[in-house]
Amino acid sequence: MRPGLDPTLYLVTDTALSRPRTVADVVRAAVAGGVTTVQVRDKDASRRELYELTLAVRDALAGAPGVALFVNDAVDVALLAGADGVHIGQDDLPPAEVRALLGPDRLLGLSAGTTAEMAATLALPPGTVDVVGIGPVWATPTKPDAGTGLGPGGVAALAARARAAGLRTVAIGGIDAARATSVTGVDGVCVVSAICAAPDPEAAARALRSAVGTAVAR
Amino acid sequence: MRPGLDPTLYLVTDTALSRPRTVADVVRAAVAGGVTTVQVRDKDASRRELYELTLAVRDALAGAPGVALFVNDAVDVALLAGADGVHIGQDDLPPAEVRALLGPDRLLGLSAGTTAEMAATLALPPGTVDVVGIGPVWATPTKPDAGTGLGPGGVAALAARARAAGLRTVAIGGIDAARATSVTGVDGVCVVSAICAAPDPEAAARALRSAVGTAVAR
Repeated sequence: MRPGLDPTLYLVTDTALSRPRTVADVVRAAVAGGVTTVQVRDKDASRRELYELTLAVRDALAGAPGVALFVNDAVDVALLAGADGVHIGQDDLPPAEVRALLGPDRLLGLSAGTTAEMAATLALPPGTVDVVGIGPVWATPTKPDAGTGLGPGGVAALAARARAAGLRTVAIGGIDAARATSVTGVDGVCVVSAICAAPDPEAAARALRSAVGTAVAR
Repeated sequence: MRPGLDPTLYLVTDTALSRPRTVADVVRAAVAGGVTTVQVRDKDASRRELYELTLAVRDALAGAPGVALFVNDAVDVALLAGADGVHIGQDDLPPAEVRALLGPDRLLGLSAGTTAEMAATLALPPGTVDVVGIGPVWATPTKPDAGTGLGPGGVAALAARARAAGLRTVAIGGIDAARATSVTGVDGVCVVSAICAAPDPEAAARALRSAVGTAVAR
C-alpha cells in the first residue's frame, strides 16, 4: 500500500543552508513546528553521503509517523534507505521508469513548471505520479536556473489541471510565511530556505503552517 | 544467472574526452579493436542524461554479446537501462546494499586502492563483489584526486589478495599501450583516456589489447 501523504507544509532540505546545524536537527525542529512532508535534497552529496543523510533524516522522523520522507532524484538511495518516495525533476529519470523501479508501494513526486510539462505529467499512466511540484512561484536563490516565477495565478492554473486529474499539488519557489498567504489552489507549499536558513526552524515552520492553513485549498 | 565477465581490456567512458565523437561511437570502435568490458561513467551528467547515455552504449554493444556493460555508481540507472552491472567507488553506496538492490543476476565492481580498502572488500559476504578495480597504478589526469600511484608492484600485491579470494581484478590509472606491458598479476586493465582521447579508438584498443595479452596474468 502506498504511504499516506499530507503535503500541507513540505520541507525540502538544504545541507549548506542548515549549517552549522545538521539537516536532521533542522528536520526535527521543523516537524515539531508543523512540517508534514520532508524531501532530502543535496545535489552536492556523493551517493554515499546522500544515503547517510537520508538515514539520519529517517531517524529524525521516527517520532513523526505521519510525515512522508522523499529523496530527491536518487531512486536507489530512496529504496535502500527505506524512504516513502522519490521526487524527480524534468532532468531526472523518466517518471514511468522510476515508478517501475519503485514499485506500487512508494510515492512519486514530479516537478512541472510549464503547461507542456503538466500535459506530459497528466499523460502518464494513472498511479505513476502522486504529487506534482509546481513552480517556481517566485524566483528563488536556491534554484537560480528555475526561471523568473509563475506567480500565484500561474501556479493555481497549472494546479487546477493536476487536481482535476486526482493528483496532489504543491507550490514551490521563493515562498516564505508572508508570501504563503497568497498561494492558493494547491494542496500545500514547499519551502527550502524559509526553514533551513531560519534562526529558529521550529518557529519558522509554525509561522508557515499557520499562513498555509489560512490560504491553501485543501 | 550472473552475466559472463571478461575484464581483459576494460574501457571506462569519458564523455568530454570522446568529443566530438559520441561515447557510443567510441565504444563501437573500441569493441571492434578488442575491448572486452565497458563501463559508462559521466560524473557531470544528470541522472536522465546518464540513463540515455547508457541506453546508447547498450545499443552500440548489441553486436558484441560477450562484452559486459557496467554503469558507474548509479544503481537505478543500471537497473533501468538493463546493464550487466554497476561499478562503485569507496564514496558510493555501500557494496552490500548495492548487491541487495542489484539482486544476484548482475555484476558488481568495486574500487580498492589501499590495503585497508582491500581488506574491507574481502570481508564482504561471498558473492557481493565480482571484480575489484585496483589503482591508480600511475597518477592520472582523469582522476586528479586519486593519489600518486601504487605502481605495478603495489597493484600486483593488492591483486594477489583479491585473486586468492576468487575475485577478478583490473588495474586502473594512467595505463596506455606502452605501460600496459608492465602491469602484471591482474585479470585485465582499465583505460579511459588511452581510448577515449585517441584519434583512432579502434587502433588504440587493438594496441592495448595486444600489449595486455602479453602481460596480464589470466
